Amino acid sequence: MKFGGTSVADAACIKRVAARIVDTYRSGHPVVAVVSARGDTTDELIELAREISENPPEREMDMLLSTGERISAALVAMAIHDLGHDAISLTGSQAGILTDTAHMKAKIVDIKPHRVQRALDEDKIVLVAGFQGVSTNQEVTTLGRGGSDTTAVALAAALGADVCEIYTDVDGVYTTDPRMVPQARKISVISYEEMLEMAATGAKVLMLRSVEFGRRFGVAIHVRSSFTDAPGTWIKDEENMEQAIVSGVSYTLDDAKVTIYHVPDRPGVAARVFSALADASVNVDMIIQNVSEGGKSDISFTVGETDLPVVHAVLDGMREELGFDEVSTDTDTAKVSIVGAGMKTHPGVAATMFRVLADNDINIEMISTSSIKISCVIGKAHVQKAVQALHDAFQLERENIQRDEVFG
Amino acid sequence: MKFGGTSVADAACIKRVAARIVDTYRSGHPVVAVVSARGDTTDELIELAREISENPPEREMDMLLSTGERISAALVAMAIHDLGHDAISLTGSQAGILTDTAHMKAKIVDIKPHRVQRALDEDKIVLVAGFQGVSTNQEVTTLGRGGSDTTAVALAAALGADVCEIYTDVDGVYTTDPRMVPQARKISVISYEEMLEMAATGAKVLMLRSVEFGRRFGVAIHVRSSFTDAPGTWIKDEENMEQAIVSGVSYTLDDAKVTIYHVPDRPGVAARVFSALADASVNVDMIIQNVSEGGKSDISFTVGETDLPVVHAVLDGMREELGFDEVSTDTDTAKVSIVGAGMKTHPGVAATMFRVLADNDINIEMISTSSIKISCVIGKAHVQKAVQALHDAFQLERENIQRDEVFG
Repeated sequence: MKFGGTSVADAACIKRVAARIVDTYRSGHPVVAVVSARGDTTDELIELAREISENPPEREMDMLLSTGERISAALVAMAIHDLGHDAISLTGSQAGILTDTAHMKAKIVDIKPHRVQRALDEDKIVLVAGFQGVSTNQEVTTLGRGGSDTTAVALAAALGADVCEIYTDVDGVYTTDPRMVPQARKISVISYEEMLEMAATGAKVLMLRSVEFGRRFGVAIHVRSSFTDAPGTWIKDEENMEQAIVSGVSYTLDDAKVTIYHVPDRPGVAARVFSALADASVNVDMIIQNVSEGGKSDISFTVGETDLPVVHAVLDGMREELGFDEVSTDTDTAKVSIVGAGMKTHPGVAATMFRVLADNDINIEMISTSSIKISCVIGKAHVQKAVQALHDAFQLERENIQRDEVFG
Repeated sequence: MKFGGTSVADAACIKRVAARIVDTYRSGHPVVAVVSARGDTTDELIELAREISENPPEREMDMLLSTGERISAALVAMAIHDLGHDAISLTGSQAGILTDTAHMKAKIVDIKPHRVQRALDEDKIVLVAGFQGVSTNQEVTTLGRGGSDTTAVALAAALGADVCEIYTDVDGVYTTDPRMVPQARKISVISYEEMLEMAATGAKVLMLRSVEFGRRFGVAIHVRSSFTDAPGTWIKDEENMEQAIVSGVSYTLDDAKVTIYHVPDRPGVAARVFSALADASVNVDMIIQNVSEGGKSDISFTVGETDLPVVHAVLDGMREELGFDEVSTDTDTAKVSIVGAGMKTHPGVAATMFRVLADNDINIEMISTSSIKISCVIGKAHVQKAVQALHDAFQLERENIQRDEVFG
C-alpha cells in the first residue's frame, strides 16, 4: 500500500491511513506501506535550502529531503500502534532500497528487503519511507519526484506481493481528465503499455517510472482513492485482456514548440542539434524537419516549457557553427493524444483522429505516433474542444465498446 | 565544534554558524561540527507525535526525532559549500556513533568514526547530526536531552581532537546565575569534577553526561558563545590547576520535598521505599531519616517536582504493607549548593555556608555533601538572598581568591 503526501498531511489524515492499513491487515493480508512526506514538507525543505544556498550540493539535498518521508513513516507507525497492532518504520536504506549514485534522481539498482521480510515474519506491519534509498557508496539518495510510487512498486516486486495498491486523491485512472470532459469514465483495467503512454502524454495519476517497474516485474498495480473503498483502476499485463481500441485521451499544456529556420541541409546537423540538447538534459519530444528551398530546411521540435531557457542557450552557442537564421518559440501549443492497445490491429484510428480534429476546425501542427498512441500538437485554445470531441468520437464514456460501433 | 538549536534556528543563523566553522577551518584546523535540531523542531515533532498517539513507541519516536538534527546538518553543509568549502553531513549512524538499545535515552557504547576520518583526510569539513546513533540492533536511537553535547564530546574523544568547543547562547560557565547575582563572574577554567557537581546541582550550561564523557576520556571542553569571539570557560583535568576553594554557587527550584510520617522503624523499610521509587525511575536526591518516638520514624527526601505523581502512586501502593501514617509533599523548596575542588582540603567551608545562611535568617531544611559540594534545601522564597549572600561571602566576583581572605 502506498499513500501520498495529501493522505498523511496532518494527524487526522495519518490516523485515517493507519485505520485503512489495519483494516487490510485484519482481513488477513501482511502489509508493507510506503508513505510520502506530509503535504508540503518537501517543498518547504527545498525552500529552506534555497534560502541558504543558490546551488546546494545534491548529496546534501538528499540528506535533507529524505527526512520528510521518515517523519511520515514514524508517525503512521505510531498511529497503528495506537490501534493495537505492532508496526515498525524503516528508512529506504533499512528497507534495502539500493540505488545508483545519482543524487536527487537515483535509480533503484537492487532491493534487499531482509529487514522488511523479517518484520513481516514477526507479524508486524511495515512502514517504509518512500522516495529514497542508499547508494552503492553508502550515501542517502532520493529517487526524484514520484519516487514513492517507484519505491512501492519495486518493493512489491521484491517481496512478491499480490498487489501494489497506490492510494491517491483521485479514485483511479480515467478515460480523460474529468475536469475537462464530464463524461470521463474510470477505467477498470488497463495494460502497462497503455498506462505508460497515458503517463507519458499527460495523465498525472502515476509516474512513468513506477509503471515501467511494474511492467518489468509483473506487479499488479491498483490505483485507488484514499477516501473511499470503491475499487480503482488495475494496471496489469495485457495478456488475456480484452483490448480497447482507444483506452483514453490525454493532453499536456506545458510543451513549447521550437523552430530553427534555414538550417543548412547537410548530414549530421540534426544529430548535432539534438545531441547538444540531450547533453544539456533537455527532453525533446516530437521532431519535424521540412526540406525547404536552397539547401536549407526548418527543424521544429517540442520540449517542456521550463526547458526553454536552456534550449536558447544551447542553440545560441551553435548559431555560428551551424549557420542557421533564426529560432522561434511558441508556448501557445498543446499536445492531445489517444492511447489504446487495440490500435496495433486497427490502422483506421489515426485517420479517425485527424478527421475529428478537422471537423472541429482544429489545425494539427505536428504528429507523432507509436504502436499504441497518436499525439497531435494543436493550439492551446483548442484543447478542451479536441479532448471532448475525441472522447465522444471513440465513445469512451461506454465500457466494452466494439470496433464496429466506432468504425461502423 | 558543537552548535545548539538556537544557533541554527533559521537561514541567517545557519549562515553565521557556517562562517564560524569556515573561519576555524581556514585558520588551519580540521573541523568536525555537531549540530542540534533547529529551534523548536524537536518540540514540534514531539507535539505531532502526541496528537497521533498518547503513548508512541520509543523506537518510532527515535525515527521521528532524529530527523531534526539531520536537517540542520545538511543545511549547514550547504551553507559551507556556498562559502566555497567542501563539506559533508553525516547522520549519527554514518558518523559511527554506536549506542545501546535503550530508545530515547540511549548510551554511547562505542564510536567508529571511519567515515568522519576519511572525510577529514579528504580535507572536508564534517557535519554530524547530534543527539543520535545506531544501536547494536541496527536501529536509530536518540541520546535524550542534551545528547548533542554528548555526541560532540564523544566524537572529540574518538578523533583525538585538541578541543571540543560547545557553542551556546551564554558565553561560558558563571560563578552563579548572572540573572540572580549581577556580580557573577565567568569562570575561565574549571575541573570536570566541579563542573559535574555544578551541573548536578542546577547549572544548566552543560549536560551531566557530556561532562562525564569529557572527564573519562580527558577531552578539553571549551564552552563559549555563538555570538562573540571572546573565550568562554574551559573544562579540563584538575591536575596542575590552581584550585579555588569555592568555584560557584548553583541552585535548583524544581525539587519537591516528600515526608513519610511514622514509618515503622525496622530494618529494610527504607530500602523497600527507595528501591520501589528507583524501579519507577524516580531520581531521589537527598534523604533524611529522623528517629521518632514509639519505634516509628519520619523519612524525608527530595525528588524532581514532575516526579510527584509517580511518587504518590508508588507510596500509596505500599501504605498497607509498610504501615505508615501520612505522606506530605512540599514544593515550596529550593536547593542551593556551593561547589569547589578546594573544599577537599578546607573543612571550614560547610561551617561558613551554614553561618552565612543563618546570618540571613534562612532556615536549612536538609543538607547533603560530597567531597567538593555542599547542598542545602531551603524555602523557595529565600533563594535569591541565599545565592547572593553565598556569592558575596566566598568573594566569587574576584578571580584567584586566596584562602586566607575568606577564612581570615
